[in-house]
Amino acid sequence: MSRDTISDDTHGVVYEFAPEMDAVREVEPGTSLTFETRDSLDGVIQDDDDLLDRIPEEVNAATGPVAVEGAEPGDVLKVEIEDVRLAEDHGRVVTTPGFGLLQDDPDIEAPFTRMTPVEPAENYDDGRPRVRFAERSIPVDPCIGTIGVAPAEESYTTLVPHDHGGNLDTNDVTTGSTLYLPVFQPGGMLAMGDSKAVMADGEMCGTGAEIATDVDVTLDLLKDPEFDLQRPLIDTGEAWKTVASAETLEEASKLAHKDAIELLSAEHGFGPTESHAFGSLVGGLEISQVVDPLVTVRNAIPSEHVSSPF
Amino acid sequence: MSRDTISDDTHGVVYEFAPEMDAVREVEPGTSLTFETRDSLDGVIQDDDDLLDRIPEEVNAATGPVAVEGAEPGDVLKVEIEDVRLAEDHGRVVTTPGFGLLQDDPDIEAPFTRMTPVEPAENYDDGRPRVRFAERSIPVDPCIGTIGVAPAEESYTTLVPHDHGGNLDTNDVTTGSTLYLPVFQPGGMLAMGDSKAVMADGEMCGTGAEIATDVDVTLDLLKDPEFDLQRPLIDTGEAWKTVASAETLEEASKLAHKDAIELLSAEHGFGPTESHAFGSLVGGLEISQVVDPLVTVRNAIPSEHVSSPF
Repeated sequence: MSRDTISDDTHGVVYEFAPEMDAVREVEPGTSLTFETRDSLDGVIQDDDDLLDRIPEEVNAATGPVAVEGAEPGDVLKVEIEDVRLAEDHGRVVTTPGFGLLQDDPDIEAPFTRMTPVEPAENYDDGRPRVRFAERSIPVDPCIGTIGVAPAEESYTTLVPHDHGGNLDTNDVTTGSTLYLPVFQPGGMLAMGDSKAVMADGEMCGTGAEIATDVDVTLDLLKDPEFDLQRPLIDTGEAWKTVASAETLEEASKLAHKDAIELLSAEHGFGPTESHAFGSLVGGLEISQVVDPLVTVRNAIPSEHVSSPF
Repeated sequence: MSRDTISDDTHGVVYEFAPEMDAVREVEPGTSLTFETRDSLDGVIQDDDDLLDRIPEEVNAATGPVAVEGAEPGDVLKVEIEDVRLAEDHGRVVTTPGFGLLQDDPDIEAPFTRMTPVEPAENYDDGRPRVRFAERSIPVDPCIGTIGVAPAEESYTTLVPHDHGGNLDTNDVTTGSTLYLPVFQPGGMLAMGDSKAVMADGEMCGTGAEIATDVDVTLDLLKDPEFDLQRPLIDTGEAWKTVASAETLEEASKLAHKDAIELLSAEHGFGPTESHAFGSLVGGLEISQVVDPLVTVRNAIPSEHVSSPF
């Protein structure tokens, strides 16, 4: 499939998702594109001796935004993620003072940088490239850290996740998944960046293996669907995962579970209490990240129990 | 293998893990036993019309405790879980006023009970029994909700999880897993109960499908191992999972991650910052439950990256 490229260098990046954004490109629903994304730290970390003394004012550059013709508030933007390809031969994992799950722990050094070179698939029996960390190697499993649309009212820097998406740092935003985002503004305004070669659920030190990528997506539009999508939703093929961000993991868990209750009720005609009880038996809560200014939790419902809500 | 049975009816149950406990039985290291456990609500819920107006003062009856000969503080009790068999033909999922993730939500009814009949494996193509919930059925995947030893100093009711184990409500405490518990008191004093036929990670409504079970285990003792185990640790065969309980999911995440850092440092000779960064790339944080008086988080490290710490 021929696809145009949206480039961080030539089209540009944003460091904020705002209600009013200027599209770098407008496309029709059904268009396939490649987004070129730079690493979350704008390429300033290239060596173990490059240290990040503080979180930069501008971080998680998001390539775009791209407007989808005809998108209006109340619609849903469907982002099929067809491929996330590594676009440089090394990632980097860093700690930064005042950031991360163990920021107050005296045993943890910050700043600290460890480059994670990418080793080609042909070196390994399982045919997957790996990133090296000291003497260890880890199979590459890329995800897009920051992806979102223009929010309804407030602006959010690309360090913050919220109902518009943003810095979700969610492993399931990856090759083969479909991400559904609510449209809050005309055109939707999709931007993405901050990919990782690999990341643990939790992103405890504050980063995964941050890396530039080329991301193939097809963008489509669901016009004013009956199901009222409030927050990001992911179809991994094996599960439908609600995604919610809040001040605490408890609050994010409540939102993610309430969204799952909506899915189950729409599918099975359950009342909210029945869906709550049923949802306490299948799938369950997952942690995306515990380090950003708001934290992010998923609730995964196996596809056996939810088809598409749209 | 011939194995003796420890029965909730004839040997008895406890509703508290205390520093001083009276063993119902003493066994040698290497002994295989079957624990008969009653459901967490002592059998009082047998119909959709049986409602739980409040959490009973005594809940999560734990069969035992069993002492292991020679166990002393500083040792580790190894519990190989060989089988968790359902011992009644229905479970139950309930909501209770003032309990559960959505206890303040006006849309959620409490008390509410839904019986979950067990349907035999031969009814299903995949050869697994299922529990029925309304018109839906869910493959059975039993776990032990409450399992622990005599704590170091404080007493904990069987509603509370902590470093001694207790009400961990952790899906991975299941057939095929090995649970390691720190020994705080002579004999260790193992008791268990509160099984579920199936439960979602999070246990959002406050229960899984609560059910009586027969649990086959082999108990062994690791004498004064070099690795200093502070809290429960699970070997699922695919991953080593640290298990930590605390007031908030954030605090539990910190403890579970610090325990994972200890595992990684012991295995690879990493310093704490290196293990912190490496642990932000592999496996990651998982939610066990968000409803008990303390909440429980795991950190899963794939077995590729950690062998046994013992």
